[in-house]
Amino acid sequence: MKKICLLATGGTIACVPSERGYVPGLTGSELLHLVPELASIADISVIDVKQVMNIDSSEMQVSDWITLARACQRLRDSYDGLVITHGTDTMCYTAAALSFMLSGLRIPIILTGAMKPLTAEVTDARANLLDAFITVTEAQPGVQMVFNHKLIHGSRAFKMYSQNWDAYVSRNYPLLGTIEDGHLQVHHTAKINETGPALFTGLDENVFLLKLTPATSPAVLDYIAEDDYHGLVIEGFGTGGISNLNRGMAAGLRRFHEQLGIPVIMISQCPYDGVDLAVYGIGEDALQAGVISGNDMTTEAALVKLMWALGQTRELKEIRRLIESNICDEISPQRLEA
Amino acid sequence: MKKICLLATGGTIACVPSERGYVPGLTGSELLHLVPELASIADISVIDVKQVMNIDSSEMQVSDWITLARACQRLRDSYDGLVITHGTDTMCYTAAALSFMLSGLRIPIILTGAMKPLTAEVTDARANLLDAFITVTEAQPGVQMVFNHKLIHGSRAFKMYSQNWDAYVSRNYPLLGTIEDGHLQVHHTAKINETGPALFTGLDENVFLLKLTPATSPAVLDYIAEDDYHGLVIEGFGTGGISNLNRGMAAGLRRFHEQLGIPVIMISQCPYDGVDLAVYGIGEDALQAGVISGNDMTTEAALVKLMWALGQTRELKEIRRLIESNICDEISPQRLEA
Repeated sequence: MKKICLLATGGTIACVPSERGYVPGLTGSELLHLVPELASIADISVIDVKQVMNIDSSEMQVSDWITLARACQRLRDSYDGLVITHGTDTMCYTAAALSFMLSGLRIPIILTGAMKPLTAEVTDARANLLDAFITVTEAQPGVQMVFNHKLIHGSRAFKMYSQNWDAYVSRNYPLLGTIEDGHLQVHHTAKINETGPALFTGLDENVFLLKLTPATSPAVLDYIAEDDYHGLVIEGFGTGGISNLNRGMAAGLRRFHEQLGIPVIMISQCPYDGVDLAVYGIGEDALQAGVISGNDMTTEAALVKLMWALGQTRELKEIRRLIESNICDEISPQRLEA
Repeated sequence: MKKICLLATGGTIACVPSERGYVPGLTGSELLHLVPELASIADISVIDVKQVMNIDSSEMQVSDWITLARACQRLRDSYDGLVITHGTDTMCYTAAALSFMLSGLRIPIILTGAMKPLTAEVTDARANLLDAFITVTEAQPGVQMVFNHKLIHGSRAFKMYSQNWDAYVSRNYPLLGTIEDGHLQVHHTAKINETGPALFTGLDENVFLLKLTPATSPAVLDYIAEDDYHGLVIEGFGTGGISNLNRGMAAGLRRFHEQLGIPVIMISQCPYDGVDLAVYGIGEDALQAGVISGNDMTTEAALVKLMWALGQTRELKEIRRLIESNICDEISPQRLEA
């Protein structure tokens, strides 16, 4: 019989109507009260509740990830698993953050939420909560997300739909499992973070995300260079193209590498397949400029991983080594072997 | 019997190996020579070729869209259809740009390309070229894309995969058709641009795309405000969330609206379903700050549409009216009626 703790953070699942539209209102205890079936999940003896915050997840920032990671750290030895209720908007960012911040987990940490509030007439909140508590008793250790009967690895979750019940996909990675007939069917076991301290909160949040467009002026690189950013993630075109011709984007990026010591990671603005800088001349231009391949990482994972790496070192060579290492299956291992 | 013109711009389809990796090398005429089956498409009497440029599409910029749109304008009355070969990386941006720049089209303009060069041993170039020329004889007028046997509306194309043959999806919109057994099967007829002059080249490219993350500092809004940008597209969270709590993002955006007269359009970083600012308190904050809903537009369409609107007026009310109008089915009509 397992002891589980619910960490409530707000989000749609906890929303109530207001004159401004839906705003988070229900506490974690109220969520549990509204789903009495949770008490009858066979393997759970105790469900405790911690109200960590109660906000819309669009409001979540790095300091909130740290608050949440600290709460997980305090509870991980006292419980057999943690369930986190969370807004859907930035759940993938938080899942990636916890995947890097928490190391050596021996229990599952299951994030869940809902597209409609638990108090709405038609809602996925009840099913997602039940699935999350079922899963937390049966899943492998590590940070994971339960949503619409799917179990997704924390470093691979991606919000594909802003309104559909089936909002998330496992990006460039197999589903960990599905929840069917009240049980978890395991499809895949993920590598989890086993590096560094059990809790790492030293994320360097001075990281800029630049999504390229054909109108992107290289002048934005000067801004990033001059405004105390320590790292840059670029969502390039296709397999990692940058717009260089007549614009000197590559020269701008080389300055980051050679003069400023600011790491630049290239990922793709295409949701699937990732970057491969060695295929095209235009990717080779990026490589020559010292850009680090983000391989098939999600934007969320690449951003968090760069914050995590910068929190450990400002030395470019070491940052490159960290970014190119597979910490928690955020990069497909077969791509690293290729 | 139809007269078709091929406008060649480079891209993977025309790539040849080099010591830097693949770079565009083949001309449009060479492409045609390598696919002799094109000459036997029943309805085509003449295929002429214009080499508009020969570049990797990651290099494409707004001036290239204008060059290409001008070429289309010169040819539209002399041909029954145009086929444009184009790199895959920014093909969706170009498709959106031509959709807004060319008005009142009475012929189809079909963009196509390939994930592997025509000269590669295994390639989709041959099939895509054949499909494009079959489609150009059978399709409705307007800017469209043919790829992997699918016909996609120009303002709705989205590159979902950076390496898969089936790289594109029709985002938040039905497929226009599929190419089966050498013929186009029409599934849907799109509204095309019928506003303004036949050719509009006055795009204002001083537009910034900001993809939010939980680490986005509102200081970037000051940079955008001070660096001569005339418009801002924000990829917000979920249905259009912004991070406001403890950061004053809404206040920063209100300054754009009230003091600077810079329009801000909110779209979603989720590929599907778009934004709906009226549902959550956090969306209402954005609405109150004067943010214009981008509804279910793609990033590519929203960016181009803002350039197109800014090229016509700097008056915020009129820009809002233009952005909220459905010009070429870049917004789902049923969402505007809702």
